[in-house]
Amino acid sequence: MTTPEAREQAVLEAVRKRRELVNDAIPEELPIRRPERLYEASRYLLDAGGKRLRPSVLLVTAEALTDVDPLTESYRSFEPLDDSSPIDILAAAISVEVIQSFTLIHDDIMDDDDLRRGVPAVHREYDVETAILAGDTLYSKAFEIMLDTGAETDRMVRALDVLANTCTQICEGQSLDVQFEERDRVTTDEYLEMVEQKTAVLYAASAALPAVLLGADDETVDALYGYGLDIGRGFQIHDDVLDLTVPSETLGKQRGSDLVENKQTLITVHAREQGVSVDSLVDTDDVDAVTEAEIDSAVAELEAAGSIEYARAKAHELVSQGKGRLDVLPENEARTLLETLAEYLVERGY
Amino acid sequence: MTTPEAREQAVLEAVRKRRELVNDAIPEELPIRRPERLYEASRYLLDAGGKRLRPSVLLVTAEALTDVDPLTESYRSFEPLDDSSPIDILAAAISVEVIQSFTLIHDDIMDDDDLRRGVPAVHREYDVETAILAGDTLYSKAFEIMLDTGAETDRMVRALDVLANTCTQICEGQSLDVQFEERDRVTTDEYLEMVEQKTAVLYAASAALPAVLLGADDETVDALYGYGLDIGRGFQIHDDVLDLTVPSETLGKQRGSDLVENKQTLITVHAREQGVSVDSLVDTDDVDAVTEAEIDSAVAELEAAGSIEYARAKAHELVSQGKGRLDVLPENEARTLLETLAEYLVERGY
Repeated sequence: MTTPEAREQAVLEAVRKRRELVNDAIPEELPIRRPERLYEASRYLLDAGGKRLRPSVLLVTAEALTDVDPLTESYRSFEPLDDSSPIDILAAAISVEVIQSFTLIHDDIMDDDDLRRGVPAVHREYDVETAILAGDTLYSKAFEIMLDTGAETDRMVRALDVLANTCTQICEGQSLDVQFEERDRVTTDEYLEMVEQKTAVLYAASAALPAVLLGADDETVDALYGYGLDIGRGFQIHDDVLDLTVPSETLGKQRGSDLVENKQTLITVHAREQGVSVDSLVDTDDVDAVTEAEIDSAVAELEAAGSIEYARAKAHELVSQGKGRLDVLPENEARTLLETLAEYLVERGY
Repeated sequence: MTTPEAREQAVLEAVRKRRELVNDAIPEELPIRRPERLYEASRYLLDAGGKRLRPSVLLVTAEALTDVDPLTESYRSFEPLDDSSPIDILAAAISVEVIQSFTLIHDDIMDDDDLRRGVPAVHREYDVETAILAGDTLYSKAFEIMLDTGAETDRMVRALDVLANTCTQICEGQSLDVQFEERDRVTTDEYLEMVEQKTAVLYAASAALPAVLLGADDETVDALYGYGLDIGRGFQIHDDVLDLTVPSETLGKQRGSDLVENKQTLITVHAREQGVSVDSLVDTDDVDAVTEAEIDSAVAELEAAGSIEYARAKAHELVSQGKGRLDVLPENEARTLLETLAEYLVERGY
């Protein structure tokens, strides 16, 4: 598996199988109950699909850690590293996906985005009030679902601590992201800190949580957390690249929306340092008013400054660093899959 | 202490001392750190004051349970019922107040209320984006702060379970509250269910959490939870009465705002059953446009229907029931204070 195409196929196949299990588990963990409108709104974005990359990272990490062949053990009753009771590792995976969904629902309100995954954002399909409340409901549900994993209490406390810290950092990162929109100049380090908090910590939690729940040692937990931080930053930087280079139809939202909304990305940070007048690349700040020609011309200027290539290279560098941290794991098929997954995150076409 | 005035004095004195300790602990548990704007917004409502009733219930319950004289033990290092390590019960009290603050910030956005505690709502002082994010930050911080209590892991897991369940129910209650605004008819039972979820569960958690953290038996935990549910419902019903009967200046917001915003309260539910045309009591649905004369006339009609008296009686009945549940506690000064506190909740002038 040396070509990007072969890697993509391997990852898509691995993710597809786990995505089905995650999709089946979502209604089990989050049934539509009274008040129905609230739970329907809470489920709306989760049911709209998604690649389920974070839960997949969590599930494959569990398999790599415990040295079992991928998809041979029941995720609902997963043997830990010692002789303690089996863990519902699928619940942990759902918990992480539920956190992701809550943050997207609230982010879309804050950014006033109309579309997500090709369907209306929750505050458009319902209303802002319902969307705030749906996000808030998912927030506590994520903790309740994590409490369903059946881990020993000391491991459970640590897992809930990771979850709470992760949520706090996501809020801090989102706050920085919003503040950066108002600023003329953001350094590479500031951007990377923001991305670490806003995006990478949830990948870090996805990789570290199975280690916590299954009873791995601190060194392993820390290394896996570092793997998640690295690939999560790589993922976000690549996402910023995709926002400029993938057709709107494939993205499920307007191409170039980050530029229109004055979002700071590693690409714009680099371009500014090269003297590009980033703020004048697109005239409007309304995603409904921008033309494809305007985006094309902006992308051409960013490419000429080497900014898109710079971001691509940085994403690959981070993923390479992250893969190196997997040495704490036994050599097995699942560990190879974690390496392939990491590469996929910065090679994927959308 | 048989008169309402004497009870009020006793409660105000007890609450005042604990409020100072709570006020001092808030900046310790929630320091303003980077990103400063986010943490300033998160602290804004907490710093604007408040009676700290819920943390006071939590702290006095801890004293009643462990049979210590009020305010003689350190809340930061509080002896549990067995010989396990001391508990930071003040952190638990702050956690509950932080949850309360998060729900108020998000509720004010949903209700588009301008004022809270006599100061601008967070989404007015800052903006909606910052207010959503400040609430989200407080949400996870409440879990982090609870994790700082130092309880044994089995008790900690149970405490975090109570906290997560409480948050979910608050969201469910708020959702019902919003849905009721659109409905012509709500039954007394539906109203009481909504109030239990929206308001009472946080009082229930405040009374039950010290029992969980300090190692009380299940019967005690359940009885204290029931006490909180009862006094919390009484509190909310009395709050609905105050919204109509206390001057705007004292309330810190427009008197009669519930009526203007078509909120269902036990008063309006009862009045409808008596044939009062509740929807025509106030013409406007804009709190800035309503006149005191309109509110006066609406209140007179609700009084004539016996609806305000009905709500007062129901609040007293619930508090009486709640006090009865305190038999599980040893007889001591703190337990008497919990009884007095319960009565104060439905007698207070604002």
